[in-house]
Amino acid sequence: MESGQTTRAAETRRRLLEAAVEVFAEEGFRGATLQEIARRADANVASTAYHFGNKEGLYAAVFEYAEQRMAELRGPQEDDADATRAPEERLRQHVTAFLTRLLDPRRPAWFARLLAREMIEPTPALDRLVRRRMRANHEQLAAILRDLLGPDASEEDVRLCTLSVVAQCTFYRHSAPIVARLYPELTPAREIERIAGHVTRFSLAAVRGLRGPRKERGS
Amino acid sequence: MESGQTTRAAETRRRLLEAAVEVFAEEGFRGATLQEIARRADANVASTAYHFGNKEGLYAAVFEYAEQRMAELRGPQEDDADATRAPEERLRQHVTAFLTRLLDPRRPAWFARLLAREMIEPTPALDRLVRRRMRANHEQLAAILRDLLGPDASEEDVRLCTLSVVAQCTFYRHSAPIVARLYPELTPAREIERIAGHVTRFSLAAVRGLRGPRKERGS
Repeated sequence: MESGQTTRAAETRRRLLEAAVEVFAEEGFRGATLQEIARRADANVASTAYHFGNKEGLYAAVFEYAEQRMAELRGPQEDDADATRAPEERLRQHVTAFLTRLLDPRRPAWFARLLAREMIEPTPALDRLVRRRMRANHEQLAAILRDLLGPDASEEDVRLCTLSVVAQCTFYRHSAPIVARLYPELTPAREIERIAGHVTRFSLAAVRGLRGPRKERGS
Repeated sequence: MESGQTTRAAETRRRLLEAAVEVFAEEGFRGATLQEIARRADANVASTAYHFGNKEGLYAAVFEYAEQRMAELRGPQEDDADATRAPEERLRQHVTAFLTRLLDPRRPAWFARLLAREMIEPTPALDRLVRRRMRANHEQLAAILRDLLGPDASEEDVRLCTLSVVAQCTFYRHSAPIVARLYPELTPAREIERIAGHVTRFSLAAVRGLRGPRKERGS
């Protein structure tokens, strides 16, 4: 293949991907059509098959593209797996990084829409996302909570506390339209530090209380 | 109007409403068409205008119908505004009732889908739902947290703690597909009591810790 053709093919692929992002976010996986995506990309439907196979393949490519974009947004503190720090400090870092990722205004809005649509009608893209990203984040957070809860905590305690922390973070993204209507004075995207501080303090106090009286006042 | 015509009109209205529920849940407000709704109801499009005005009117009627259905599911404990009980007990009741409402298998699945779609593309139906239902629930919960946090807590503390409790409940509904993939062994709809117990204990411990050392060990 000539260099000009390669460039043109890469350019078409990029245009198709960007059109797919928009159409899937607007219409969901089921509602989107390759015809509409090709039309917006000013390409023909055969080119979607050439580059992505079928609608599933194109949707998977959109999620991979989203993961790349999200990875670029990650700050260095995100992957700081410095287990020598106190678990209180690791919790604060994890919560701040997670909320920043959820509320970062540079995070593409279409990714939040794609994810919200997956909560209504899950597809294999969600399975892959859980396997490739979310599970590792959960396990990192569970390890912090296991340290905080101490050796007497059951795995179920660890799991439920982990979900309580995750819930408090994702809520500000998921339920943003409800938060905005109940509390118009709260603008979560501009108050990430304050919300992260609250979620960390609330969760640390909860875990200390659940840990029982033995070591409760020790930290 | 003769009785037979009245009955027939009421019957058509009912069929249109049930078809609208399905089509809006599947396609969202924007994607749904009166043509498709009329077709599924075996009625003509003019009858949708006669009974509901326009698509907005029909969508509003669907939400009113959902609110009625949800109100029928409320247990008597839900409206138990017995402020003489201890706030710890009121928190437990509120959380249990809320989680039951969210996870009740008798709750129509289409309502969860409609609400999830409102989180992606809010419409005036969400404004009405917040005004007519959600705000009162929030204020009831905020009053409990205000009692638990004590007189030194700021309104911001109360608000953030209220949202932390709400978040822990709604998570099991909103993020059900993620919970199911991360923890296949957890079946929230069959473990409402256990989850409610955890959310109550976690939140009470958090609030006691945040309240400060003065009364922390008193309860």
